[in-house]
Parts: sequence; C-alpha cells; structure tokens
Amino acid sequence: MRNGIHPSALQNIRITDPLFKHYVSLVADQILPYQWMVLNDQVPDVIASHCVENFRVAAGKKNGKHQGAVFCDTDAYKWIEALAYCLENGKAKAFEPIADELIALIGQAQQADGYLNTYFSINHPDEKWSNLAEGHELYCAGHLIEAAVAYFQATGKDQLLQIAIRFADLIYSVFIVGGRAGYPGHQEIELALVKLYRISGNPNYLALAKHFLEERGKKPNYLLKELERTAQNRLFPEFADYDEFYAQTYDEPVRQKTAEGHAVRAMYMFSAMADVANECNDEALKDTCTSLWQNVTQRRMYITGGIGSSGHLERFTTDYDLPNDRTYCESCASVGLMMFGQRMAELTRDAQYYEVVERVLCNTILAGISKDGDRYFYVNPLEVWPANCLPATSMSHVKPVRQPWYEVACCPTNISRTLASLGQYIYAEDDNSIYINMLISSTFCIKTAEIKGNIEINAYLLQNGTATITVETFEASAFNLSIRIPKYLEQPEVTLDGNSLDAEINNGYVVLNISEAGKRIIQISGSVEPVFIAANENVRADVGRLALQYGPYVYCLEQVDNGENLAALFVSANSEIIKGLPIENLPGELPTLHLNGKRFSSGVGSQLYGKPAFSMCDQNLTAVPYALWGNRTPGEMLVWIKTTF
Amino acid sequence: MRNGIHPSALQNIRITDPLFKHYVSLVADQILPYQWMVLNDQVPDVIASHCVENFRVAAGKKNGKHQGAVFCDTDAYKWIEALAYCLENGKAKAFEPIADELIALIGQAQQADGYLNTYFSINHPDEKWSNLAEGHELYCAGHLIEAAVAYFQATGKDQLLQIAIRFADLIYSVFIVGGRAGYPGHQEIELALVKLYRISGNPNYLALAKHFLEERGKKPNYLLKELERTAQNRLFPEFADYDEFYAQTYDEPVRQKTAEGHAVRAMYMFSAMADVANECNDEALKDTCTSLWQNVTQRRMYITGGIGSSGHLERFTTDYDLPNDRTYCESCASVGLMMFGQRMAELTRDAQYYEVVERVLCNTILAGISKDGDRYFYVNPLEVWPANCLPATSMSHVKPVRQPWYEVACCPTNISRTLASLGQYIYAEDDNSIYINMLISSTFCIKTAEIKGNIEINAYLLQNGTATITVETFEASAFNLSIRIPKYLEQPEVTLDGNSLDAEINNGYVVLNISEAGKRIIQISGSVEPVFIAANENVRADVGRLALQYGPYVYCLEQVDNGENLAALFVSANSEIIKGLPIENLPGELPTLHLNGKRFSSGVGSQLYGKPAFSMCDQNLTAVPYALWGNRTPGEMLVWIKTTF
Ligand SMILES: [Zn+2]
Ligand SMILES: [Zn+2]
Repeated sequence: MRNGIHPSALQNIRITDPLFKHYVSLVADQILPYQWMVLNDQVPDVIASHCVENFRVAAGKKNGKHQGAVFCDTDAYKWIEALAYCLENGKAKAFEPIADELIALIGQAQQADGYLNTYFSINHPDEKWSNLAEGHELYCAGHLIEAAVAYFQATGKDQLLQIAIRFADLIYSVFIVGGRAGYPGHQEIELALVKLYRISGNPNYLALAKHFLEERGKKPNYLLKELERTAQNRLFPEFADYDEFYAQTYDEPVRQKTAEGHAVRAMYMFSAMADVANECNDEALKDTCTSLWQNVTQRRMYITGGIGSSGHLERFTTDYDLPNDRTYCESCASVGLMMFGQRMAELTRDAQYYEVVERVLCNTILAGISKDGDRYFYVNPLEVWPANCLPATSMSHVKPVRQPWYEVACCPTNISRTLASLGQYIYAEDDNSIYINMLISSTFCIKTAEIKGNIEINAYLLQNGTATITVETFEASAFNLSIRIPKYLEQPEVTLDGNSLDAEINNGYVVLNISEAGKRIIQISGSVEPVFIAANENVRADVGRLALQYGPYVYCLEQVDNGENLAALFVSANSEIIKGLPIENLPGELPTLHLNGKRFSSGVGSQLYGKPAFSMCDQNLTAVPYALWGNRTPGEMLVWIKTTF
Repeated sequence: MRNGIHPSALQNIRITDPLFKHYVSLVADQILPYQWMVLNDQVPDVIASHCVENFRVAAGKKNGKHQGAVFCDTDAYKWIEALAYCLENGKAKAFEPIADELIALIGQAQQADGYLNTYFSINHPDEKWSNLAEGHELYCAGHLIEAAVAYFQATGKDQLLQIAIRFADLIYSVFIVGGRAGYPGHQEIELALVKLYRISGNPNYLALAKHFLEERGKKPNYLLKELERTAQNRLFPEFADYDEFYAQTYDEPVRQKTAEGHAVRAMYMFSAMADVANECNDEALKDTCTSLWQNVTQRRMYITGGIGSSGHLERFTTDYDLPNDRTYCESCASVGLMMFGQRMAELTRDAQYYEVVERVLCNTILAGISKDGDRYFYVNPLEVWPANCLPATSMSHVKPVRQPWYEVACCPTNISRTLASLGQYIYAEDDNSIYINMLISSTFCIKTAEIKGNIEINAYLLQNGTATITVETFEASAFNLSIRIPKYLEQPEVTLDGNSLDAEINNGYVVLNISEAGKRIIQISGSVEPVFIAANENVRADVGRLALQYGPYVYCLEQVDNGENLAALFVSANSEIIKGLPIENLPGELPTLHLNGKRFSSGVGSQLYGKPAFSMCDQNLTAVPYALWGNRTPGEMLVWIKTTF
C-alpha cells in the first residue's frame, strides 16, 4: 500500500447522503447492467459499441475486423474499473463472474509478447507504435492498468493485473530498453503507471511515466512529424487542424504555465505531473502544477466545473473565454479536473483544491448522467436552446437531451467509475492523519496501521448549515483528524462534544488532535444560504449576469418551470432568493429556489428589428440544481441569468 | 435588350456620393490591379491563387496539374465581370487588353466540344459531370456566363460570350438532349442562364435554368446518391456532414418555404427562382419566392444584412438564431441577398425589397472590404474579441482583421463586381418608367426608346434629411418616375419645383408622371436621425441589447475608441445620441455617434467567480459605421450594446 497521503480504501466507506447514495447505488444497480448490454451491442436502437466483440475477434474466438472507435477497448476497462469500486463497496456482486470472464477474454486477446490492443492487433498488426498521435495504444494501456489496479484492490484477483503488468513491461522494453522515440498522443498511461508503481513497487513504471512526461514537448516535435508521415491515413478528420497545442506538445510539460489544447488530455497529464512531483519531490514540477491549476480554475473554468471552451478539437481557448451555449465542457474533462484536484490536495495538503473538486462533482459530473443512469451528456453547456442545436451546424456537438450512447463513448464509463469511487474523494489518510475532504454524509471504518475506529458524517449543510461528525476510536492513538471547512459555509464554528473549539482553519482544514479511545462528536455549523454569484467582468459571456449557487450546487432555469426563451428573463441582484420544495421524482431532495424576476419584451411586435419599446413584466422564477437539469420535459436551460440595474 | 423592368445600363450612370464613389473608384483603381496580381500569384506573402496558371495549363501553354480550389476559375470570371462594369463606366481602360488576352487564354482552355473547366480538364478529364456535388463545374459555368454577358454589354466584344454560349450549348446537350441526370451542387448557373437567355433570346437557356430548378429536390436525391458513390474521394472534408438541406435538395424549390442550408447556394437559387417566376409568369414560384424572402429577412437576417448563422457548413440554422460572435455571414451570401432583393423588386415592383438591399449594401458589403481595397472579410461577425478568434478552435473561421486573400477566395471578387455594378441597384427602367431605388447621389443619362434626358440625385439624407432630384427631359414623352422613399426617412415630404406634392407612396415609391420636355426639381425631405434599434426578443443573442442605426447605416463600437471589453459597456434606451465629426482618413465623411454609457464592473476583483458587487462608471461611447470598422488599430468590435433598465 502506498505511502504518504492517499485516498482511503473504498471497502471501508459507505455513502449515506441521499443525493450521492442515489447515484452511487445507480452505478451498481442500473448503470453497470445497462452499460454491459451496450458494450455487448444488445440495446436496441442504441449505436453499436463493438467493444466486447472486438476482444472476441482479437482473442481468435470470432472472425472479423475491429469496429467502432479505435480506443473503444477503454470502455471495457473503465466498466471493469467502475465495477471494481462497486465490488470493493460490497455491491454488484452478480457482475464479478461476468467480469472474470471478460478478463479471461482480454487475456486471450493479449499477444504472446504482452501486446494488447484490439484495433491494432486485428486491423493493423504491422503498425504498432507507429501512430501514437491517433492510434491511442498507450491511452488504452493506461485505462487497462487503472482497471487492473482497481480490480486487484477490490477482489484480490490478479489476472487482469498480470495482463496489465505484461503489457506495461512490454511498453517499458519498447520505449526505455529499446529506446523507441515517442510518447502518448493521448495522455493517460502516465498517471496509470504511477498507480501501477504504487501497487507493485516496481520503479520501472514510475520511470516510464517520467520518461513520457520528459520526452513530450522536445524539439523536433515527435507527434507533428508522425502526423506528416500518416497524413494519407487520417483516422480523425478533425486532425486536419491538429497543432502542437492540441496534445500539449508545444513545450516540455514542466515549462507549461497555461492550460492549452484538448482538455481531457491536459487534465490527465496534469494529474500525472502532480503524481510524479509527489513521488519524486520535484519542486519545479510542483510549481508548474500550481501554475496550471491556477490558470485552469481562475481563468478557464466554468462555474459548473466544466472546462474546454471550444467544440472544435475539444480544447481550451484563452483566458476568460467561457461561452455558455457553444462550449464543450466534456464530462471526461471534468472527471480529469477532479483527478487533478485530488492530486494537488495530496501534493500540498491544502483543502482549497477540494473547493473545485466539489464544484465539479456537484455540477458537471452529476449533470453528465440522467437520474436513471442510462442517458449521458458528453458536452455540458450552461445555456441550451434546443431549436438551435441542429445537426451539421456549429452547434451540432451540443445535445439538448442526454443520449443513450455515443460513437465516441468515453464519457459514460468515466462518469460511472468516478461516482463509484466517490468515497475516495471524501476520505484520505496517511500514517497519522485522516482527512475529510468533503462534508458528504457517509461512514468510514478507520483501519490504518495505527488507528482503528469509525467516522460518521451527517451533513445537513443546505438544510440548516450543520454537519455532525462522530468519531469513535477503539484504542488510544495519536492522530490528526483534518476536516475541510468548505468556503461556502459562512461564519463556521466547530464544537467538540458541545464545547466550542477555537480551532484555526489551516489550509482549509480544521485539525483535531485525537489521542484517547472513545467517541466524540464534532459539530460544524455556520450559514449556507443560496446566493448570487458573478463572474469576473472579463468573462464577456457573463457580463451583467448572475448565477445562483447554493452551497456547492449551481442552479439553473429550465423551460419546464419558466416557459420558453429563458434569455429574456432578468433578475435583480437584490432579489430575495426563497427556498422551495424539491422537484418530485428527482433524487436527493435538493430544494428549488424561487425569486421574483422579469420577462423582457423588446416591443417590436412580430418584426425582426424595430424601434425599441422595452417593457418588463413580473415573473416568478424557479431554479433547480444544474446537477439535475434535463430530467423532465426537454427544453431550454440557462445558468447565467441577465440582471436589471 | 431585355423587356420588362430591368437595371439601367451602367454606362449611363455615374456615382457621385462621396462614400460610394470612393469604393466604386477603388474597384477600378486599386482592386482590379491588386486582384489581378493575386490571380497571377504575384503578391508576396499572399496565398497562391493558381487561378490564371490553371488556365495556362488547361490551354496547353504550360505543363502541370490544377492547383488551388476546384472552383477557382470563377475568380477570373468574377474579375472580368467587375472589370466589365468598370469599362462600361468608362474606367479601368488599361485592363481591357489584359482581359482580352485572358479571354483568349480561356478560349484556348476550352475543349473542342465546348467544355471549359480547368480542374476537370487538367486533373480529371474522365470525371466530367460525375461529381456535381463537390466539383462545381456548373457553378463555374454560371460565373463564366455572367462575366461573358457583362463583358459583351460593356465592350461589344463577343469572344467570351461565344465561349460561354458554346459551353452553355454543351450543357444543354448533355442535360436536356442527352438526358443526363443531375443538377448543380452549387447553384449559380440558373440565374446566369436567365441572363444569357435575355441577351441571346435563345429559349434553350431559360429552359435549362428551369430544368435545373425542377430536377432539384426530386426523390431519390441525386446529390446524396452521387456523394455515396464518391465517398472515398471527398474534396471537402466538411462534406462528411453533408445533408439534403445543405444544397437545398430537401424538397423541390417551388415547395421550399424557409431558407435552409448553405446561404450562398440558397441566395443564388432564390435569385434564379425569382428570375424564372418573372420570365414565366409563374405565380406559384413567385409565392414561394415571397415566402422565402420573408423567412430570410424577418427571421434569419442580421441587422447588418448578414445571413448564415452557422460557421460549420456556412449555413442557415433556425428562426431567430443570430449569434453575433460565432456567426458566418459570408460576404458572398450578402451579395446573393442583394441579388435576390433586386429580383424580387423587379418581380413585384415593390420598393420594400430595396429596404433590405440598401441595408446589405451599406453594412455587410462595405464592411467586407478595407478602405484601401486590398483586404477582405469572408466572415462578417457583429461582435469580435480578437483574443478568442483562435486557429483550430470553434472560432477559427472568424478573422478579427481583413485578410489579403483566402484559400477559398469567392468573396473578394464578388464584392468588387457588386460595387462596380452599384449603379444597377440604383436605377431601373422599363418601357415607360424609370425607377430610383436608392437615394444615392449619382447622375443618370436616360436613353430608353421613349425617353431621353438626365437625372441627377444629390442626397444629403444624413446631413439634413433631404435629397434633390433634378430631372431633365429633352422632348415630350409620357413616363413615370418612381422614387423609393426609404423607410428610415421619417415624415417624408415631396415637392416638385417648390410646390408641395401630395403624392401617395405606393409600394414604397412616390410616382411622378412626367410628360413635358424640360427640367424639374424634385425635393424629398424628412427627418433622419440616429436611432436605437431593438431585435425581436426571440433573438436570444440580442435580448436587452440595442443597436445604433443612422439611416441605412448600422453603427458599432470599436476598441480603438472605447477601450477593451466592449461586452462590459451599457447604454440606456433613453440616451441622447449625438452626431460627431467623421473619423479622419475614413472614406465618406460619415459622422461618428456619441452617447453616454456605463462601464460595468462585477466587483469580484481578480477572482473568476465571486459575490457580486456590481458597479457602473460613466463612459462616453463613440460609435462608427459598421461599414468602416476594422480600418484602424485592430481590436474588439460590437454592434449590439447591452442596456441598463
Ligand atoms: Zn469523454
Ligand atoms: Zn464568399
């Protein structure tokens, strides 16, 4: 087991918060079965995945060619990873034999030398490692490794881990021993190799991760040269516009200061950089990670935790460029941002990173999935007008309703593996500390070398501004319990067994020193009220607009509650925001928010343009959590509401 | 010469208006020489056109392959057409021998059977007529015909006309006599064939235009089937998203009621439909044209006369979808809208169409070209933030500054042929009427069969709300002079020789019956003040915003006058709009407009998001004509200004 601060084991964590319990249970009960059928091309009217079929062909059990996305092996890997987290949590047991069978099949698809990638081994066996820019071999290997580590940790079974190790060893021998030039076109394996290093102790894997991070950005640019060579056989039409920013090869990673290019690639790489900085005590890399984090979260992130402003090439653009309707905000990019934030918190032991992790989780991640688990957003806009989300236009990437699957289906399994591992974003530990990073109701059975006991969080922050943390230790020990006090909790107070605790908040944590055995109750209280939030005025898209936020939840207007043309609604910054009953049939019992607004009319009648005769009529507005939008009658949606002055 | 209402001959028209005289002269003095150098690949640092070179290769004077856009023959044709209009106007005489040489070369590039297209005859001689969707043969033929008609009218020389006729006869024999299936992938030849019919009297050309319009939209869809056949050899990557709307093949043209698909294709086709409706007295087609015009101008047109909201596939989207920053608004689409409007006015004798023609001309057409004539916009946004117009993103089609040329260079020569023929948008005639369609200062020498005389327009509408029209006739005759009274002229009054004329305005025209020989002065006066204009509140992008308009000119804010972040500026609908001095060194002496505005600050300091502490500080705003934007220091630009309530 890994040294230093690390997420606590999922097997010891149970989520009890009504909203998150819904989604975590959904993964085990609905999502895994649904996705398993999709991966086996068994859901009528849903685009064929070909995922499992490709493994059958590669294993020699069927004839045929590879079909579907070149990287669709990863859908199986992420499905296994999500299942592993459920199994570790005592759920979805029925799928364990199915996974074991799938793993056996994967093993049969692995070649004698350890090579494993259905696209290349079926369709292009002679082109291995020659199309790193588009071929996604190393990306697929990364997800294989992540799944293998998770499945081993959950079940103790090492078949998939051995498969992953054989492949990782082959990659090491090709790129390190053999000295083959190149590095991943889509980063992912770097962070996976750190995981494999931590679980195996084999320093080759850390060295390989470092190698890939150090080769990247060197001149001449490996990927650009490779793309010239493969120009006649483009796999992805949009690669016609590929540039050195796209896959973050414009400079060596350690010298990058801004988030450029493809947002998912960037997040996976930044996460790996934080891991390597941590493992190697690399201060320069740590400084870079800090700069990158600042740039992402203080210049290029939506209030919902979405990132990636350009639909074309799924990429970052420029500071403050945060268009609400045409944005990309891929679900996977937000998954990556949670991963990056978690690692920055590990690297710095500063809770500030969880301000962002919680924002991402409570908004874009939850919004990425329907309340029933079988519909997904790939793109997560902050403003939707269904009529203009037309196919074959600039807006075709924005879907006004969640889809049952995608041709490129990275997001659905990425969301489910993230939700299934939610406990690991709440609890972390090291030799003498337990960290509570988010006040999400849950129980945690402490089983470190030094500490045995139980933690129970009962959080009612939105309801009454309180969270109660019960900590029971079975024997004397000396450890720190670090509890993040979220910034949205105003005037926080902490009591220990009813006595006011004048604890300072350090790096966002209130730290309690616990030594004696026994039970103690920590009460955190303060004020959490729905508030208006403004964006920096340099965000052109949001000037003069307000968003509604309640704790970590961003709220939005939906057409089903407020009529069509949400763009014509205005609020005053002085409006009173009133809490209302939750919407029926939506999970989590989160309140609605109500306020007096105005509906604008330009006075030009049926003309397209005319002399203004502006008028406003009163309209009561209802806002719902962005996390839950699109779960009722489809229609318009809006986060940033215009303001009257 | 054509019967019925038609534009007057350019040779009899001189533009004296200072703004338009600048641009019309610019075509002859600067643009034709500049574009000629570009078409001959002689301008350093400008993308190679290959246009004239391709004709040399096709003519057998050079070895090589066709290079550049498949349709770049049209750049030469449109250059000749613009030159023809200049020659007809007594300008650019030095280029006539150059054009004659080019025409001789074009003749040598024509094949024995009349076929003429450098791309196919050089690169794919066996694939003629087999790639109508992407190959642009018929589109190129259309521009050849338009150029030939114009050059014949201007010079009386018929070499190019004979070339065009031979090609048109071949096309007739292929598609009518030979019964070959198909119709243009990019409409244009239909309207050109009507021109050729009118000048030659040969009914085959009108029949061929009708045939192409009637074949289009039939099931099974010819172009979709052809694209399946050519799928392995896509010329245009974006055709991966081709659909039946793109080239207006989703239904028979006469049954289309909304403007769908590629905006330039749509405008050229609608123009041809109006022409055919006119020639054939086709009431159903006329009704369709009226519906299409209504849909374009009352649902899908920007205040600047730009059309085509989607950058991807350069197309129309849905009613009221008029995003200001990411729009397309191709210069060519606005050229096409002027053509459509002109033809609708001919079809209906209603001046309302010139309300739009003048809007398009005075805004998007002029904005498409720099004041010096050597830089061009292809895309004409209404809001520009240069920092986010990044390559390889969703905004890469928007250029914050005009470019010296384009890989697809349809727009520059399209703008110049339109400006060079401006007189034909001002004056029209039929047997017993003269029409003045726009009050643009100019002189016109009347030389119809029945009427001889002179008209002089001296318009000072922005200066003092007046226009004086002096009409001299040399002998007695009986004709109507129809003068369009523009809708932006409020409380118009008309006097004839100083006597108030109680003339009704019919179909937008005031009609004077003129019989005796002699001179008479018609004075039109009223009020033209700068005003705010609002958009219909269904235009999501413009809700709560105001545009400034002064007569036909839309105004905009530029960073050079108002500082950066124009999105943070607000005005009140009650603000007084004050006329100021023209900007130095910009043509036309159009006044600036000044008003008291406010600059918004969100109060979140350097944070990206925070609690709002909105404040406004006073700022004097300066607006300039959109027609002239981007002629000074590059920076942000904004048409629709936010409003305080
Ligand atoms: Zn994804
Ligand atoms: Zn164009």
